[in-house]
Amino acid sequence: MTDQPAPETSTAPRLVVLDVNETLSDLSPLRQAFSDVGLEPHETEAWFAGVLRDGFALTVLGDNPAFADLAADGVRARVRAAHPDRGEQTVDEAADRVLSTFTSLAPHPDVVEGLRALAGLGCRIVTLSNGSAGVARALLGETGAGPVIEDYLSVERAGVWKPAAAAYRYALEQTGVEARHAMLVAVHPWDVEGARRAGLRTTWVNRKDASYPSFLTPPELDVASLTDLAARFG
Amino acid sequence: MTDQPAPETSTAPRLVVLDVNETLSDLSPLRQAFSDVGLEPHETEAWFAGVLRDGFALTVLGDNPAFADLAADGVRARVRAAHPDRGEQTVDEAADRVLSTFTSLAPHPDVVEGLRALAGLGCRIVTLSNGSAGVARALLGETGAGPVIEDYLSVERAGVWKPAAAAYRYALEQTGVEARHAMLVAVHPWDVEGARRAGLRTTWVNRKDASYPSFLTPPELDVASLTDLAARFG
Repeated sequence: MTDQPAPETSTAPRLVVLDVNETLSDLSPLRQAFSDVGLEPHETEAWFAGVLRDGFALTVLGDNPAFADLAADGVRARVRAAHPDRGEQTVDEAADRVLSTFTSLAPHPDVVEGLRALAGLGCRIVTLSNGSAGVARALLGETGAGPVIEDYLSVERAGVWKPAAAAYRYALEQTGVEARHAMLVAVHPWDVEGARRAGLRTTWVNRKDASYPSFLTPPELDVASLTDLAARFG
Repeated sequence: MTDQPAPETSTAPRLVVLDVNETLSDLSPLRQAFSDVGLEPHETEAWFAGVLRDGFALTVLGDNPAFADLAADGVRARVRAAHPDRGEQTVDEAADRVLSTFTSLAPHPDVVEGLRALAGLGCRIVTLSNGSAGVARALLGETGAGPVIEDYLSVERAGVWKPAAAAYRYALEQTGVEARHAMLVAVHPWDVEGARRAGLRTTWVNRKDASYPSFLTPPELDVASLTDLAARFG
């Protein structure tokens, strides 16, 4: 992917809207947590994709489910399938173990420095997650990025999951910023696409040098890290 | 899971609406296809969940994407990630190889006998897939179930993917059957849930003795195979 040349590319947005899970948090410790409860480490990818799949299916149906409920149920189903002999108490303990890991992840190495640099450029910064606001607060609150995060927003209050337009509008309403002055920053193309359609500027964080889906419109910016993003505006 | 006792449970529906991918088709040969193109066999699960995740995300945004486009793009992205040295021609060939396998799968062992038994009970039968009608036709057309399939329907003509209500309504309109006389039969809980909300009767096909998601309303019937389903009405 190459960046799309656009007049706005070199102008920092007034508001940065950050996705949280996997965009800010490093999910790799989940592999050990899966292993600890008797699942295969590689199952984390299918599990996470399945949580989003089911969350989006319910979004299509007009629901606004709790991310943690879907995530825990997905772990329980996998433990029951892999260990039919285990009792429900052990199954619940496995889900608790994985969810506990999920809510105590650390940010990627570029996050704190990148967010501080963005704030130094004058950007206001909020998070907007399909998960709870508490997970984002636990992730960043005690880090050096804590002081530059203006608010931790969740779709729990927006009424609908991203990528529905109303989820992004909720963040704009909460901050009083127009869509064209806000930029969604995420590792997930479906999130970037939702924000783009809602009129926001977009950055795809591509830490693994992956290819952007051919069936979506490319983002305005394509960066390798949040420090890279800040450098684009420097 | 136990079946929900309900007056309708023992009455065969006038119309059976069958999901196709994984409900009728055995996806296990995809593991070999993934291996053949240099991917891990276990990646098939995350890939398939990701195709549905992205399809549902686009459904939330009002789109009606082609299943095969998302499926092929997902394979290409994985091959590029695993083998950055490969050229795009090789990447395309890998996608072709996997998609070719996907469109030439065989039905599960219970499918032909089960569908013939359902037809013998007086049920009309159609398929309704988020993929193309051609995949379902190729799967069943030349089997002993071919003569009992009234039509192969796809969301391509419905205008929207399942689990949106309009997808199920399309099947009802095409067949002239009221929702309460139709039963959606699928392995995927999100499909069962969508049909339930659209007013159809529902059967969850649970070949692996899995647990139904706790965050969804249980289906009317829970069967281990299509022959099991027919036996419930016998």
